[in-house]
Amino acid sequence: MIQRPRGTRDFLPDEMERRRHYEGKLRSVAKRFGFRETATPIFEDSELFILRSGPNIVDELYAFRDKGDREIALRPELTAPTIRMFVNSMSNDPKPIKLFYFGQCFRYERPQSGRYREFFQFGAELIGSATPDTDAEAIALAAAMIEELGLKDFRLKVGHIGVLRQKLKEAGIPDGNLAEILQKLDKKAYEEAVPLMEAAGVDREVMDGIFEFTDTVGGIEVLDRVPGDAGDYLRSLVSRLTAMGIEDFDIDLGVVRGLDYYTGVVFEAEAPALGAEKQILGGGSYSLSELFGGEDVFSTGFAIGFDRILLALEKEGLEYENEGIDAYVVPVSDDVRSEAAEITAMLRKAGISCDTDIMERKMGKAMKHASSVGARQAVIVGTKELESDSVTLRDMSSGEQTLVPISELIGRIQS
Amino acid sequence: MIQRPRGTRDFLPDEMERRRHYEGKLRSVAKRFGFRETATPIFEDSELFILRSGPNIVDELYAFRDKGDREIALRPELTAPTIRMFVNSMSNDPKPIKLFYFGQCFRYERPQSGRYREFFQFGAELIGSATPDTDAEAIALAAAMIEELGLKDFRLKVGHIGVLRQKLKEAGIPDGNLAEILQKLDKKAYEEAVPLMEAAGVDREVMDGIFEFTDTVGGIEVLDRVPGDAGDYLRSLVSRLTAMGIEDFDIDLGVVRGLDYYTGVVFEAEAPALGAEKQILGGGSYSLSELFGGEDVFSTGFAIGFDRILLALEKEGLEYENEGIDAYVVPVSDDVRSEAAEITAMLRKAGISCDTDIMERKMGKAMKHASSVGARQAVIVGTKELESDSVTLRDMSSGEQTLVPISELIGRIQS
Repeated sequence: MIQRPRGTRDFLPDEMERRRHYEGKLRSVAKRFGFRETATPIFEDSELFILRSGPNIVDELYAFRDKGDREIALRPELTAPTIRMFVNSMSNDPKPIKLFYFGQCFRYERPQSGRYREFFQFGAELIGSATPDTDAEAIALAAAMIEELGLKDFRLKVGHIGVLRQKLKEAGIPDGNLAEILQKLDKKAYEEAVPLMEAAGVDREVMDGIFEFTDTVGGIEVLDRVPGDAGDYLRSLVSRLTAMGIEDFDIDLGVVRGLDYYTGVVFEAEAPALGAEKQILGGGSYSLSELFGGEDVFSTGFAIGFDRILLALEKEGLEYENEGIDAYVVPVSDDVRSEAAEITAMLRKAGISCDTDIMERKMGKAMKHASSVGARQAVIVGTKELESDSVTLRDMSSGEQTLVPISELIGRIQS
Repeated sequence: MIQRPRGTRDFLPDEMERRRHYEGKLRSVAKRFGFRETATPIFEDSELFILRSGPNIVDELYAFRDKGDREIALRPELTAPTIRMFVNSMSNDPKPIKLFYFGQCFRYERPQSGRYREFFQFGAELIGSATPDTDAEAIALAAAMIEELGLKDFRLKVGHIGVLRQKLKEAGIPDGNLAEILQKLDKKAYEEAVPLMEAAGVDREVMDGIFEFTDTVGGIEVLDRVPGDAGDYLRSLVSRLTAMGIEDFDIDLGVVRGLDYYTGVVFEAEAPALGAEKQILGGGSYSLSELFGGEDVFSTGFAIGFDRILLALEKEGLEYENEGIDAYVVPVSDDVRSEAAEITAMLRKAGISCDTDIMERKMGKAMKHASSVGARQAVIVGTKELESDSVTLRDMSSGEQTLVPISELIGRIQS
């Protein structure tokens, strides 16, 4: 028996309906915030992802040579393709450009709980603007999305990559070593950071101060400890978020995110219910377009791990109820099948979701199938009732039956 | 500048909105017919597609070896993955199983007008039933989908693969040669069929009779020329389609479709406006599950070329109008930005699609941007108006302005 490839999933009808439901919620919030959807190809030149993430990304890429000997890769994320699209086709559009997207991404790694080789990201990018309001808009959208999905227990963290960078520079760490040390601090891997910082001549006391700073998480009062431009920027951002009704977040001076191209504000959301793999959203302000051959343009964006956030909703016990269908048409015998088909077509034309027996089943079996497809009502078509242009309408949950003229059937089912 | 890979497309906001609009229409018709959505991975074992379509498919596949040395391929179509999913996970579900899907497919070929290396298919499969009603249900869905999209000029053709097969057998053509000759007849490549049929000892008169038969297209009267089981089956099908209000189709005895696994009824739809590449939909009854290691189960399904049908709509001049947004909030000066942000958040919470200036622009520029994002109303927030808890509401098409209390703003915008 042929199986699907390792690390991938099939989405069967119940699960797919649930996913489309939540996808629709995310799309509708994004549109309400004035963002517009775009889509890019499933694969890109491998170079695009190497430029964004560095050569190490290759180990995780589904990369291959196509028949024209081009190095292409299934996309591991959607920010780089979106900015590539902006550089190719949208650079002259009025700014700010507010985009969102939803789609599959791919990474070659050992499949584990909640992590798949084919996974789904929903994300948004705000291109061509670099103000506290821009970051506030992105964070407000992120928060509204999580809330719209119905997730209760989540933590939003906001930081600024400039704060820690400044501290490290003041401690005498050369620019070339910054990225590596920041990555260790991002993971709170202090023991790994120590030798790197020692090598740069940072003394233990200064080092401990930096570690303590990295661990600083709290309310707005934390901002009092942040000096300079980054502090002013964060204070403007917080005041705008407050005006927008977003007050439930932590200032976390240790959020620095792993990648070089972040330029200022960074933010993340976590769902504690997920344990070790608890991050459900990450983003920040960045500059990528120049790297791809375009002009230097600032952006702010974020991506939501769609699979992980659905897992978090499940852990919170939020259940999605399938829609089912409005009606199932049951012919009581073979000689009324034509009339049953006619009635089915009539109901569908009126916008009623409706199924009927196509397997030449007897009434009992057809009624059973009506149940199994979640029909709310059964329309029972019988010879005698047809003589008075009527059918029997059965409420599938109460079992109540009424004789209904065919001319009134649509209205009765819709009511 | 990094470009997207050859033969792929980016979908910018206007085009993407249009595509989602039509995708939504197809989805809603399918659900109305009691079909449920599923999704399968972007790639599968190459073997799956070779089993379905024969070894020649390899030339057109995006096939590659993954790091675990597995031969995988980006899917060229969605029927095989859907039946593979059925065999793996749904074989015990109550029949009939009615599924639909929408997604990217990939073929490696020279890109040309209306044909891309990454293209989109919408399709449906009815699994586990083999009755005229089953085929009628599939054809009715296909017709309803095309109509729902608004395509005016299209031609639906229904045939039966058994009719021509029977004729060829009667003419003495051995089973082993049937597929090759049927493929020639499918393409009406009679000159290529002649030597193959001659080699099988068919004489010219019989051959001409078969060619004439292959060319036979017409209304229900054509059925009089169809003998045997296939004729009876087609007559039942036609009578059921008539009951369902579907009467505008041709019986085409030459529709045989290229592939071996079709078992009975076959159907296609064409949009003449598209010229040479006019087929927009193709399907039929088939048997594939046994080939993939499952039980022998009959199905009927079809796929719509989503890109091509959108092209056909365009050629018919059907225009899609972008939704735009309900409101754009404009602060008249920097000291009311916080209030503008508050009002924006309030409107969004009420379900109003709403954007605001985040680039610290002066009022004139912000109003211009409100136009460019298609806002129907502008909410102008000024210091003086705020003193009476009011704002100015401007209708962007008429230019009419009114002073509106903030407490009434939501209702006024929604009306």
